[in-house]
Amino acid sequence: MIIVLKEKPNKSQLESLLLWLEDKGLQVHISEGTSRIILGLVGDTATLDTDLISALDIVDNVKRVQEPYKNANRKFHPDDTVITIGNTSIGGGNLTLMAGPCSVETEEQIVAVAKAVKASGATMLRGGAFKPRTSPYAFQGLGDDGLRLLSLAKKETGLPIVTEIMDISQLPLFDDVDVIQVGARNIQNFNLLKVLGTQDKPVMIKRGMSTTYEEWLMSAEYVMAGGNKNVILCERGIRTFETYTRNTLDISAIPVLRRLTHLPIVVDPSHSAGDAALVAPLSNAAVGCGVDGLIIEVHNDPEHALCDGKQSLRPEAFDKLAKRLFALHQFIKAQED
Amino acid sequence: MIIVLKEKPNKSQLESLLLWLEDKGLQVHISEGTSRIILGLVGDTATLDTDLISALDIVDNVKRVQEPYKNANRKFHPDDTVITIGNTSIGGGNLTLMAGPCSVETEEQIVAVAKAVKASGATMLRGGAFKPRTSPYAFQGLGDDGLRLLSLAKKETGLPIVTEIMDISQLPLFDDVDVIQVGARNIQNFNLLKVLGTQDKPVMIKRGMSTTYEEWLMSAEYVMAGGNKNVILCERGIRTFETYTRNTLDISAIPVLRRLTHLPIVVDPSHSAGDAALVAPLSNAAVGCGVDGLIIEVHNDPEHALCDGKQSLRPEAFDKLAKRLFALHQFIKAQED
Amino acid sequence: MIIVLKEKPNKSQLESLLLWLEDKGLQVHISEGTSRIILGLVGDTATLDTDLISALDIVDNVKRVQEPYKNANRKFHPDDTVITIGNTSIGGGNLTLMAGPCSVETEEQIVAVAKAVKASGATMLRGGAFKPRTSPYAFQGLGDDGLRLLSLAKKETGLPIVTEIMDISQLPLFDDVDVIQVGARNIQNFNLLKVLGTQDKPVMIKRGMSTTYEEWLMSAEYVMAGGNKNVILCERGIRTFETYTRNTLDISAIPVLRRLTHLPIVVDPSHSAGDAALVAPLSNAAVGCGVDGLIIEVHNDPEHALCDGKQSLRPEAFDKLAKRLFALHQFIKAQED
Amino acid sequence: MIIVLKEKPNKSQLESLLLWLEDKGLQVHISEGTSRIILGLVGDTATLDTDLISALDIVDNVKRVQEPYKNANRKFHPDDTVITIGNTSIGGGNLTLMAGPCSVETEEQIVAVAKAVKASGATMLRGGAFKPRTSPYAFQGLGDDGLRLLSLAKKETGLPIVTEIMDISQLPLFDDVDVIQVGARNIQNFNLLKVLGTQDKPVMIKRGMSTTYEEWLMSAEYVMAGGNKNVILCERGIRTFETYTRNTLDISAIPVLRRLTHLPIVVDPSHSAGDAALVAPLSNAAVGCGVDGLIIEVHNDPEHALCDGKQSLRPEAFDKLAKRLFALHQFIKAQED
Repeated sequence: MIIVLKEKPNKSQLESLLLWLEDKGLQVHISEGTSRIILGLVGDTATLDTDLISALDIVDNVKRVQEPYKNANRKFHPDDTVITIGNTSIGGGNLTLMAGPCSVETEEQIVAVAKAVKASGATMLRGGAFKPRTSPYAFQGLGDDGLRLLSLAKKETGLPIVTEIMDISQLPLFDDVDVIQVGARNIQNFNLLKVLGTQDKPVMIKRGMSTTYEEWLMSAEYVMAGGNKNVILCERGIRTFETYTRNTLDISAIPVLRRLTHLPIVVDPSHSAGDAALVAPLSNAAVGCGVDGLIIEVHNDPEHALCDGKQSLRPEAFDKLAKRLFALHQFIKAQED
Repeated sequence: MIIVLKEKPNKSQLESLLLWLEDKGLQVHISEGTSRIILGLVGDTATLDTDLISALDIVDNVKRVQEPYKNANRKFHPDDTVITIGNTSIGGGNLTLMAGPCSVETEEQIVAVAKAVKASGATMLRGGAFKPRTSPYAFQGLGDDGLRLLSLAKKETGLPIVTEIMDISQLPLFDDVDVIQVGARNIQNFNLLKVLGTQDKPVMIKRGMSTTYEEWLMSAEYVMAGGNKNVILCERGIRTFETYTRNTLDISAIPVLRRLTHLPIVVDPSHSAGDAALVAPLSNAAVGCGVDGLIIEVHNDPEHALCDGKQSLRPEAFDKLAKRLFALHQFIKAQED
Repeated sequence: MIIVLKEKPNKSQLESLLLWLEDKGLQVHISEGTSRIILGLVGDTATLDTDLISALDIVDNVKRVQEPYKNANRKFHPDDTVITIGNTSIGGGNLTLMAGPCSVETEEQIVAVAKAVKASGATMLRGGAFKPRTSPYAFQGLGDDGLRLLSLAKKETGLPIVTEIMDISQLPLFDDVDVIQVGARNIQNFNLLKVLGTQDKPVMIKRGMSTTYEEWLMSAEYVMAGGNKNVILCERGIRTFETYTRNTLDISAIPVLRRLTHLPIVVDPSHSAGDAALVAPLSNAAVGCGVDGLIIEVHNDPEHALCDGKQSLRPEAFDKLAKRLFALHQFIKAQED
Repeated sequence: MIIVLKEKPNKSQLESLLLWLEDKGLQVHISEGTSRIILGLVGDTATLDTDLISALDIVDNVKRVQEPYKNANRKFHPDDTVITIGNTSIGGGNLTLMAGPCSVETEEQIVAVAKAVKASGATMLRGGAFKPRTSPYAFQGLGDDGLRLLSLAKKETGLPIVTEIMDISQLPLFDDVDVIQVGARNIQNFNLLKVLGTQDKPVMIKRGMSTTYEEWLMSAEYVMAGGNKNVILCERGIRTFETYTRNTLDISAIPVLRRLTHLPIVVDPSHSAGDAALVAPLSNAAVGCGVDGLIIEVHNDPEHALCDGKQSLRPEAFDKLAKRLFALHQFIKAQED
C-alpha cells in the first residue's frame, strides 16, 4: 500500500501515523520528494482500512498495490476452480451450457424445454421461480410452485437446476436446487451473500449493472470467506449510455477475470442484449475468448412467455446454436494446444 | 401506449393481437402509414406487460405514454406529501436536516454528536448500525448494539432516528427507529421493499448507483403498493465515468422528481462527493434548487472514524453550514413568494 | 413519426400544427385517448426537424419510427458494401487485418514492422503520423515526415496505408494514403467529415468514447451525403464506469451494426483494452461474431515505443495470432454455410 | 510519480530503468516490500511519458502524484484568473450572465433578444452562427451571415459576443467576436486548440460528453501552452445512463474545478437539461455553489426556433430569473464574508 501525504504535513501527526502503522506490524519506507512525502507499506495490508487512513488530515490519497480479495485471487490459487454439479462440471476448460425459460410457467412448459435443451447438449436447466421485476404490478414468478416444477423437470431429465434466490428466507425451499443464483440486483446484498457462504451449494453471482470487477470479486469473497469456495461469476451486461441493447455485454470481463481469479466464468447473452437475434453472435464471441459456460434463455413458446420472451430462443434455434458452440469450443481448444 | 408494428406484419397475427387488446377493455386506434402500422391504445394500460407485447413477432417496439407508477405519481396526487416524524416533518416547503456519524461507534460518540447537531438545528439523527461494506473484512457496524446506542441518543436529545436496514430479518430490531433507510445497494431488493410496505414507519429509499428516475419511483411504488404511503427519496450520487468524486451528484434529480412525484426529496452530499470539502457547496446547490432535506455526516473525531471519515464534517463545520443553509432556504422561499 | 401531445392541448395551436404538417405533404392520423392525443405521421419525415416539433407548447414528445440515416441504412441498401483498396478488400465476408505501430518513428521501424505484418497476412499497414495526445507536452507524432515514412514502407511492401487525419488542412499531405482514419475525438468534427465526403479515398470512422450507434451512423451519413460512399466503421471501446480496461469493447456493436447498416465493420482490440495481453482474446471474440476486419498495434520494440507501447504486440505474437484468426474465420464461415 | 514494479522484476531491466530515470535528473527512492518493489520519483516528472514507462515489461503500473497540467493549475497560480471582456469581466467573484438564442436566425430576432437580455442584466450575447448538428440534413446555422448579424446586435447594444467556432478555417471570420467558444464535440480537436492558443481572444471550452476533469484541464492547457491564458471552462452536462434529461449536469464540477484551477467556471443549464423548465432550478444550484457565470438560451419565439427551442426561455422568463440570480449571488457572497 502506498500513502501519498499532502504537502507540508504536520510533523506530530505524521509521527503518530508512523507509530500506528508500525504497531500494525508493517514496515514503512519513506520517500521524501521536493514537494511530497510518500510512504510505502510493506507487510500484510489486507486488513488495513483504506477509508480510515485516507480520512487523516495529512493524507492526500492511498493506493492499494495488492488486491483486497484473497480467496478469489488467482495469485494465491493459481489453478482453475472446477465445480462438479451432478454429472456435469464447470471450469477448467469445459464449455457448460445452462438453458431454460426465463420464468417457470407450467409443468408442460418446463418439462418440454428441459427435454429439448438436454437433447441439444445443455447440462443444466435454468428457470426463474422468484422473479425480480421492476414493477410491483408485473408477474413475480410462481415462487415455491415454480421450484416444485423445476424439481419435476429435474426428475424427468436428470438435469441439475440453477435458479435465483431473492431473499434469505427462501433458502429452505432450495433443497433440490443445485446452483443458487444471486441476481444482478442482489450482488451487494451482503447479508444474503454471507448466508450463502455458510451453506454448501455452489453460488452463481451475476454482475450488477454498475459493478466493477473488483466489487464483483469482493462479493464472491463474501461467500468464500464464509467457507463456500464454489462460486461462479456470470457476466450479464453492464449499464452504459447505449440504449439500443438492453445492456452492454462486457466481453473483456472474460480474459480479465481469467487473470484475476481462478473461479469459473459464465456469460448470459440473453439478458445482455435483450434480443434473441443477438444471442448467437454474442455466444460465439464469448466462446471465442474462452468462457467456461453460457446461460441461455430457451422457451417453446416465446411469444406467450410471461416475461422476457423477446430474448428467448426457440428450442430449434438453441439446438443449432449449441451444436455450433460445442464445435467452436473444440476448435478454439485445439488451436491452443 | 403505442405499439409500432414491424413492416408487413402477418395479418392473422395482427388480428389476434387486436382481439386480445380489445378483450382487455382497450380501444385501439390504427394508423396505417406507407411502410408501418402504428397502434394507439386507449384505456387503462398500466396492467399491460410491455415485455409480453414487445416479444410478439409482428411488434417492432412498444412505447408507454403514461408512467408505470401510480401511487408515487404527482398526476394522481398533485399535493406534496408531508411526512411527520416526531416533532419534525419533511416535505411541503420545509428544510429538514438529518445529521450524524456514518457509523455508530460508542455511546459517548453518538450522544455527543446528537447533542451537537441538534444544537445546530438538525431535527433528525442519522447513524449506521448495520453497514454495507464492499469488503467482508471491513468493519460491518455494531449491529443491534448500534441500534441500542441510537436509542440512547434519541432519549437524550429527542431526535428521531433514521438508520439503514440491510435485511428483512432485522426489522424486529427497528422498533425505536423512526425512518427506515433502504440503501443504494438494496434499491431493487424487492422482497425487502414489499415487507417495508406492510409496516407503518416512513421509508427513505436511496437511489442506486445506476438507477433511473423511473426505476427509483417503481421501487417507491413497491412500498406504496403495500399500503405504506410515507416514502422519502434520497439522491446520493450516481456512478459515471468521472472518478475524481466518489459519485456524481445528479442535482437535476431534484426538479425532475418534483415534477414526477409528490414525495419528499432529500440529498446526501456526503456520500455523493466522498469529500468533506465538497459537502457545503453541494448542500448549497441542493437548497438552491428546492430540496426538502439533507442528510449529512457529522463526526466529532472524523480522523478516527471507523468508516468514511473522509467525508464527515466536524460539529463546528456543520454548525456553520446549517446556519447558512437555513438562511439560504428562507431567502429562496422569500424569492418564490 | 409519432407526436404525443400534452394533456388538454390548446385547440388553435393544435389546428396550426395539423395544417403545418399537412403543408409538408404528410398525412396525419389522430388517435384520441381518454387523456392524450397521439398523432401518427405518414410520409417522408426524414426532413422534419424533431427538435422544432418537440419545442411546441402542446407537444409532450416526439418519436421517430424511421432511422434518420439513409445512405448508411441497410434497409435501402441490403447488400454489404465491399471496399477495394489496392489488392485487398474489406466487407462482404473477408477478414482484413490492418497492422502496424501506434506511431511511425523511424524508417527502420516502419519498414521492418510493415514487412513483418505482411508476412503474417496483414493486407494493410496502420501507423500514426499525426497523433492526438491528451497532453500538449506529449509526443505529437512525426507529422508529414511520418506520412513520408509510411509511403516508403508502402513502396517496400505494397501494403496500402491507413492513417489518421486530425485537421482539414492536412488533407493535401494524404495523397499517398489509402484509407483516411477519423479518430474517436473527431467523430463529430462535422466540418472534417463534410470535406472527407467530397474526396474519393475511403474513410474509416472510429467510434467516439460516448457515441451511440445512431450518432455514429449519422457521422457516416455526413461523409456519404457528400458523395463518398466508402465508409468503414471501427469500434474501439466506449467509456464506462469500469476503469480496469482503458475502454470497454462493445462487442455487440458488430451484430447490431450488421443489422442497421451495409458498411464494413472493424474492431480495434489494441485501443479498447489498452493491454497487449487482451488483444488475442478480444480479436477472437470479434472474429467469432463476424467482424470484417481488425486493426492491431504491432511494434518491433514496444518497450521503447514513443506512445502506447503497453498495448502493442511484438511481430512474433502478431504472427501467431494472425494465423489463428484466419483459421477461426474460415471455421466460422464454414459453420454458416 | 510512483512506479509499482511487477513481482520478481528482471534485475538488468530494473538497472537500466534506474539509470534512465537518473539520467532524466530524477532522484529515485526504492521501497522493497515482501513481494513488490515500489519506486518513488522525485524531481520534475511533468515531462515523463507515463505510457512509455508503463509499457515496460517489469512495470505493473504508474501513478502520477502531481497533476499533468501546469498553466491551468491553481497550485502554481493561486489567484483566480479574471478575464475582462469589453465592459464586463468574468471570474473573481462576479456573476456574469451570457444569454441569447441557440441559433442566430434574423436581424430582428437577434437584435430584439440582445436588447431584452441586456435590459435584464446579461453582459454578454450568445448565439450560434456555425451549429454542430448530429444530422447532415438538419439546419447548420447561418454561418458568416450569422456572425454578421451578431455584429449588428453588438453594435446596437454594446454587448460582447460569445459564439462557437467549428473549424480553424473559420477563424478569420471571428474578428468582431469577443469570446470564441469551443463546443463539447471539439474539446479534443487539438489542432483547433493549438491555433486558438496563438491568438489573443478569450476561449471558452465546453466540457465534452465524456470528458474527465483532468482531460478538460489538459485541453485548456493546450490553449494556454500556446500563450493564451484567457480560458473559461463551461460545464454543460455529461452523458450518463439517465436519459430523462438530455445530459446530466455535473454540479460538483464547480467546487472541484475551483480547487484544481484558477480559471473561471461557467455553467450552461440550457443544454444540460434540454428543458426550459429546468433552467431556473439548475441556475439556482450553480449560483448556490459559486459559479462565475451562466450561459442561458433565450429566444423571443422559442416555438419557431430553428433548433433547440425546447430549452429556450422567453425574455420575460429570463428577466425574472436574472433578477433572482443576481440577488441570490449577492446573498451567497454576503454569507461568505
